[in-house]
Amino acid sequence: MSRIDGRTAEELRPVTIERGWNKHAEGSVLVSFGDTKVLCNASMTEGVPRWRKGSGQGWVTAEYAMLPRSTNTRGDRESVRGKIGGRTHEISRLIGRSLRAVIDYRALGENTVVLDCDVLQADGGTRTAAITGAYVALADAVAWAQERKVVKSKAQPLTGTVAAVSVGIVDGTPLLDLCYEEDVRAETDMNVVCTGEGHFIEVQGTAEGAPFARTELNGLLDLAVAGCAQLDGAQRTALGR
Amino acid sequence: MSRIDGRTAEELRPVTIERGWNKHAEGSVLVSFGDTKVLCNASMTEGVPRWRKGSGQGWVTAEYAMLPRSTNTRGDRESVRGKIGGRTHEISRLIGRSLRAVIDYRALGENTVVLDCDVLQADGGTRTAAITGAYVALADAVAWAQERKVVKSKAQPLTGTVAAVSVGIVDGTPLLDLCYEEDVRAETDMNVVCTGEGHFIEVQGTAEGAPFARTELNGLLDLAVAGCAQLDGAQRTALGR
Amino acid sequence: MSRIDGRTAEELRPVTIERGWNKHAEGSVLVSFGDTKVLCNASMTEGVPRWRKGSGQGWVTAEYAMLPRSTNTRGDRESVRGKIGGRTHEISRLIGRSLRAVIDYRALGENTVVLDCDVLQADGGTRTAAITGAYVALADAVAWAQERKVVKSKAQPLTGTVAAVSVGIVDGTPLLDLCYEEDVRAETDMNVVCTGEGHFIEVQGTAEGAPFARTELNGLLDLAVAGCAQLDGAQRTALGR
Amino acid sequence: MSRIDGRTAEELRPVTIERGWNKHAEGSVLVSFGDTKVLCNASMTEGVPRWRKGSGQGWVTAEYAMLPRSTNTRGDRESVRGKIGGRTHEISRLIGRSLRAVIDYRALGENTVVLDCDVLQADGGTRTAAITGAYVALADAVAWAQERKVVKSKAQPLTGTVAAVSVGIVDGTPLLDLCYEEDVRAETDMNVVCTGEGHFIEVQGTAEGAPFARTELNGLLDLAVAGCAQLDGAQRTALGR
Amino acid sequence: MSRIDGRTAEELRPVTIERGWNKHAEGSVLVSFGDTKVLCNASMTEGVPRWRKGSGQGWVTAEYAMLPRSTNTRGDRESVRGKIGGRTHEISRLIGRSLRAVIDYRALGENTVVLDCDVLQADGGTRTAAITGAYVALADAVAWAQERKVVKSKAQPLTGTVAAVSVGIVDGTPLLDLCYEEDVRAETDMNVVCTGEGHFIEVQGTAEGAPFARTELNGLLDLAVAGCAQLDGAQRTALGR
Amino acid sequence: MSRIDGRTAEELRPVTIERGWNKHAEGSVLVSFGDTKVLCNASMTEGVPRWRKGSGQGWVTAEYAMLPRSTNTRGDRESVRGKIGGRTHEISRLIGRSLRAVIDYRALGENTVVLDCDVLQADGGTRTAAITGAYVALADAVAWAQERKVVKSKAQPLTGTVAAVSVGIVDGTPLLDLCYEEDVRAETDMNVVCTGEGHFIEVQGTAEGAPFARTELNGLLDLAVAGCAQLDGAQRTALGR
Repeated sequence: MSRIDGRTAEELRPVTIERGWNKHAEGSVLVSFGDTKVLCNASMTEGVPRWRKGSGQGWVTAEYAMLPRSTNTRGDRESVRGKIGGRTHEISRLIGRSLRAVIDYRALGENTVVLDCDVLQADGGTRTAAITGAYVALADAVAWAQERKVVKSKAQPLTGTVAAVSVGIVDGTPLLDLCYEEDVRAETDMNVVCTGEGHFIEVQGTAEGAPFARTELNGLLDLAVAGCAQLDGAQRTALGR
Repeated sequence: MSRIDGRTAEELRPVTIERGWNKHAEGSVLVSFGDTKVLCNASMTEGVPRWRKGSGQGWVTAEYAMLPRSTNTRGDRESVRGKIGGRTHEISRLIGRSLRAVIDYRALGENTVVLDCDVLQADGGTRTAAITGAYVALADAVAWAQERKVVKSKAQPLTGTVAAVSVGIVDGTPLLDLCYEEDVRAETDMNVVCTGEGHFIEVQGTAEGAPFARTELNGLLDLAVAGCAQLDGAQRTALGR
Repeated sequence: MSRIDGRTAEELRPVTIERGWNKHAEGSVLVSFGDTKVLCNASMTEGVPRWRKGSGQGWVTAEYAMLPRSTNTRGDRESVRGKIGGRTHEISRLIGRSLRAVIDYRALGENTVVLDCDVLQADGGTRTAAITGAYVALADAVAWAQERKVVKSKAQPLTGTVAAVSVGIVDGTPLLDLCYEEDVRAETDMNVVCTGEGHFIEVQGTAEGAPFARTELNGLLDLAVAGCAQLDGAQRTALGR
Repeated sequence: MSRIDGRTAEELRPVTIERGWNKHAEGSVLVSFGDTKVLCNASMTEGVPRWRKGSGQGWVTAEYAMLPRSTNTRGDRESVRGKIGGRTHEISRLIGRSLRAVIDYRALGENTVVLDCDVLQADGGTRTAAITGAYVALADAVAWAQERKVVKSKAQPLTGTVAAVSVGIVDGTPLLDLCYEEDVRAETDMNVVCTGEGHFIEVQGTAEGAPFARTELNGLLDLAVAGCAQLDGAQRTALGR
Repeated sequence: MSRIDGRTAEELRPVTIERGWNKHAEGSVLVSFGDTKVLCNASMTEGVPRWRKGSGQGWVTAEYAMLPRSTNTRGDRESVRGKIGGRTHEISRLIGRSLRAVIDYRALGENTVVLDCDVLQADGGTRTAAITGAYVALADAVAWAQERKVVKSKAQPLTGTVAAVSVGIVDGTPLLDLCYEEDVRAETDMNVVCTGEGHFIEVQGTAEGAPFARTELNGLLDLAVAGCAQLDGAQRTALGR
Repeated sequence: MSRIDGRTAEELRPVTIERGWNKHAEGSVLVSFGDTKVLCNASMTEGVPRWRKGSGQGWVTAEYAMLPRSTNTRGDRESVRGKIGGRTHEISRLIGRSLRAVIDYRALGENTVVLDCDVLQADGGTRTAAITGAYVALADAVAWAQERKVVKSKAQPLTGTVAAVSVGIVDGTPLLDLCYEEDVRAETDMNVVCTGEGHFIEVQGTAEGAPFARTELNGLLDLAVAGCAQLDGAQRTALGR
């Protein structure tokens, strides 16, 4: 049984990772998972937030947002409403945690990287595309800082690689990398963030319809680990490793 | 090897569930997991939010908050700062999703239940205590509404039971129901929400230190499922089932 | 003619003052005036606000809030609305002023006490219960700081005692310590804050219905002074003085 | 012993009440108590807030604010800070309550009066000047509405008159109508709102320094009642009664 | 063809400039252009914003606001809404830019002038009246600071004079200094800020109805330059130059 | 004398207008003026704001924003700060006014178009690029609505074309379409919005340094009109007219 867009259950959508998209940012990646397009800009600045000053350690944080018409129906602009919604907060925190998992703060030194992940067009999986793209932008920003001796440590600030993918059960079948239409119909929805070695950084599974059994959870994890491995390959190719 | 408070790895802290704590709310529970105390008030009102009017379906939502001095160091009051933090948003959403998973909206009819979970004293596991207590408050509010024919359906609006517990790996050992001191030291931290049948409603695992392997994930899930089963028993006892 | 709850006109509701309610706060009191329950936590920290640095003087301030379902009908959470209402502001300021009236800033030294008064259940008189309970929490926090030499002065930072009570005219009769139902029906409503010596710290009287005459004002003040004297006794008993 | 500005203890500052100051408002009064100048505009509109619709009753409310440089040192603009301070809230509520005390809501019909009291120059007593001026603006707005049959009732919507004055104890002496310099030095500060008959609408006394005794309170009330009677005369003169 | 108020096309409304209106401000001007009245207070303080510290240069900024009932229909108070509207922002920025154009920052030294322009009564042209009045208030504040040696430079901080006026095309005719009724009917609306020498500081023209041709633009500019020259005269007279 | 990027004084940067960039929006244009890239999405929805209901007329409005790292140094996200800055407000209003100038509200019917102009990369002239691109997005959205009979009128809702360009005086020379580096150095900066016929919709000139003379203003207007005519050509080409 094939999917809406003809893919098999364990197939990713076409993934593109375009580096150097914005001329100002130290790392800038336009990532697409099918029709989902996210612009990930990494801004590297000297100095750290006040609570970390003098620690000799750096900091990495992220801000996620959707353009008002990145979705099928226009959403209100959060700046106009004067506050950030819960979903935005939640995803920004997830991206930040995911990337901090592969950072050696001491090697980074007292420098801060802010990852801005702005969804230009949404079609499901925006948070996983954001994490996958932000990793590449972060790698470019770190390399930029090493070249300019902004990062002075001989140790490598990036201790691993990170990619993320969504999986879900639709009509009883576990599927990899859901597009929006599949996402809406999913009974269970899971986002998984893995290192290149296939270890877990974050696992977030939610029963949208019926609660899910342990065997279903296991099936979804298998799919996700395999998907992240493919994304890891795409990241390596983009980075020319 | 025993824990800070003398528990074994797979042991919950003492759990108390006190119903009818507040005289105004339709359901009111003071739940404690050791020194963590959360007041869970369920407010049942006729009517639903605008986007749901005329659907014949009800709604359940939750708001979580911590009193400023529920923690060791006083935190700023979110009302004074004028905005809700990301963590608060995230947990409020988690509680709402968890309880909606066992609600039949049609059987509830066009009624709304708001679950206010206010942490009076925090010592780790506030979100899981909140979910576990809120379930009991919700059950009381639904029963209240059925008695008064506010809920008129013959079908039962509550389709199952929900409990939640945290698990984590501390010094390489998987532990159940972390207290604050353990939580701070955990390499991996996971919150699991289960139905009484042991199926998953929500699984959220985060690598705080090193990424975690599939076998570690499995060990944590085993602990959590067993812990939720015990909490399910405590809920049944409190409800006199 | 007896009152709704059988009290005489000059009788307080049952008053309880439970110290050490929260394990984190330097002073923590759960006070109840009948069904009104307020959790008063005193947080003592070294240092003062910027405008007071280097003065050698301390500071005391208060924040009052009601849990959303402390009242009969659920109220919106002020953190969600993004702003604090006028009533909340007014009461927070009243509590702060009342307690500052018995503080010797020099003896306190450059330390700050924040009094968080959170209403867990409301049935009239929440601000007067809050002041009465906050005094005890403040006394405990000051004692805590003296023991640990955080407060180093030999002079006593607490220069007196404070208690507060509401009075009002209902159906032409002056009554002490109004419960909610009486408060709603009162023509005149007054909150009085007194020292243990029976002097006034604050007198706030409002005509809710018809303006009130000087003789009525005098009758209310007599009732209030007597009520505060009883509360002063309850505070002394709680503090074991 | 004479005061800073040569007045006796029981003497008001020069009071002026200028009607028709703004050409747009239904009632517009520039009131001055010495150097304190407050512009009081009464806006009468048909209709009432949602919670009062269909009741046949009107509503009166007030908003108080200070221009940034109405004071000796420039204060931040509350619109720029994005929130209203506690003092502003408190005074707006006091003015509203004071004027509602002389309004017959049924006679007003479903009309709303908003009283904007903007302090153009401050020198102590801004809230009492605001109430005194706002009464005159309200009287003009009511008369305007009666002429145009916006208010249709034969009953008089204004059931009495209102004036307000501050009193305080400075260096042990009770003084009437404190200017800023006196206000800063006052041990006790009281604002009293009276009807023309000398009955109390609001009494708010605060110990700024030492708590005050009953006899002091009585002395202050005597001064305030006499001061309000003089202000009542000034209002009558301004209104040509 | 004469205008609503009998003026000719190239005639200003009666202009008054009253200095020293507020006793606290270093410069205080009540300016009126016909029924438009704006209170312009200049607050001079030592020190500059953080981004300018140590530069040896001063700063000038402005805040514009309308009292709620300065207009025919009462507008919501921006402090109550919790945010500043776009129009307010735009005009505040325009006033600030206009006055900075005649300031020598070095001669001003590290001092800041804030110009508060509060519209007490509006009848069209509030922003141009505000600029014209604020210039005089600024001149007074600078003179005040020079006398007290707060400004120590021998160079004159004020390098020129500034006045502003509105022009517009109504029923095909270019008119100077539009009152509200004309402004509403204008097809094209332009605000022009000039120096005393007749050079431009700011030109802002907007087609409210049909786009306007170059010849129309030229006609409007001619009118505006002549109007500003007259206002320059009124400013000089007020300042006794 | 050639410019930083080798252009002549009256030469535009390379302009590209890419239609259909986003698959969701009714009109979606990625416009670039050199390195300035703005994504302009037009969202057409049935219905109008409340104040316009029942009028038979439509509405067009715009929201402008910059991505945090669209600029050389990362700027704070306005949604995080909780309020929109003055510059953002000002430009949003300018874009809205500019496009409303070529809309026949009756022909549009009770439909609303929101133009979201998000700057992905900034290098000067973002507001003029936004207006130029937004016109094309608006034209596409109107055509979309006409095809689907959402717009039912036979009259054409778009009554003309709109383009915008910046001009400025740099080192005494008037230049067309300033890039960021030129903009920073400009003594005078002007934004001009023209119709395809070369009439003015908006003229906004500001003296950044010295005030400018009438002859300079004329020179800038000449440059701008010629530039807009070229942009009009680029728009026509893009639209295949």
